[in-house]
Amino acid sequence: MAYRFHLLDELTEHFRRLPGIGNKSAQRLAFYLLNMPEEEATAFADAIRRAKQNVRSCRICQNLTEGEICAICGDSGRNKEIICVVENPSDVLAIEKTGEFKGLYHVLHGAISPMDNIGPGDIRIKELLARVSDGSVRELIIATNPTVEGDATAIYLSKLLKPLGLKTTRLAFGLPMGGDLEYADELTLAKALENRRDL
Amino acid sequence: MAYRFHLLDELTEHFRRLPGIGNKSAQRLAFYLLNMPEEEATAFADAIRRAKQNVRSCRICQNLTEGEICAICGDSGRNKEIICVVENPSDVLAIEKTGEFKGLYHVLHGAISPMDNIGPGDIRIKELLARVSDGSVRELIIATNPTVEGDATAIYLSKLLKPLGLKTTRLAFGLPMGGDLEYADELTLAKALENRRDL
Repeated sequence: MAYRFHLLDELTEHFRRLPGIGNKSAQRLAFYLLNMPEEEATAFADAIRRAKQNVRSCRICQNLTEGEICAICGDSGRNKEIICVVENPSDVLAIEKTGEFKGLYHVLHGAISPMDNIGPGDIRIKELLARVSDGSVRELIIATNPTVEGDATAIYLSKLLKPLGLKTTRLAFGLPMGGDLEYADELTLAKALENRRDL
Repeated sequence: MAYRFHLLDELTEHFRRLPGIGNKSAQRLAFYLLNMPEEEATAFADAIRRAKQNVRSCRICQNLTEGEICAICGDSGRNKEIICVVENPSDVLAIEKTGEFKGLYHVLHGAISPMDNIGPGDIRIKELLARVSDGSVRELIIATNPTVEGDATAIYLSKLLKPLGLKTTRLAFGLPMGGDLEYADELTLAKALENRRDL
């Protein structure tokens, strides 16, 4: 095309780099932003800048926080003997929504993935080891994703932590609730069979 | 949920307000942004701010531009006797991509929609009338969308402009190229029949 809008293209390109946003969506979002009231667009830009500048990792669990220590680690009502190990901060939100877990978390910020050149040293395993070294932790629930990378990370962690006398468990795999057996994929169905329980 | 991240929530909320982005996507985008390198996130925020501050409407065609007059209106090689009237700036980009149109554009920034309380005075029709008033324009191609609102706008414009002795045309409706007849919706198929041409 002969005619280009430099600033519009630049904004479109920024949107395009976000996950799950293609060329068309990026253009639509850029146009939408240009049609926003000035204050709203400025507030958006400010929100990005402030979030980026003020959100950091919790010194204890590595989850995102705006302070030194996150609200969960700072809550004296939580059970400090159980740590749930997850890949990402969004996993913490998902588990918190269940309201079923009252322990603490540890956010690895990724999973071991040799294909992507991500080894144990590239995720926050060192920080997890430091946390459990004083013997105050009783159980580690490995809640990494049910993927090749999540599995590899779970196995690595369990081999590393079991010798320290820690109980390590993993989330159960099986049929999703409310799902239809006929639509379950084979891997899930196989897992559900393998992990069947006495009634 | 008991624990909230103020800045993260704020950023998520900004993403959620964008068209086509739901709660889950907004959260994912906010997390993605927090994981970006600082410079990239800052560049994103800057791009929003600068685009919003510097992109305005072309004084002639109302398309978005970074100057006083857009690149198309400023191009002496374009045919100034034909104006293609579209609803949005993105429509200009779409038509330019075909490389088939060498005239000028007029961007209405919307369409007449009584349901949404948008009347003729709320879109840039006044500016269009001013452009054609000196008699230099020969043909107006109404390229509003094939929707109820686009049709209403097209009919309104044609009634308004025909008395001025202007030729007004509308884009052809029919089967999309490369499509399969069997998958065309009834309205499109009916239009294709109605507008059939001699071979």
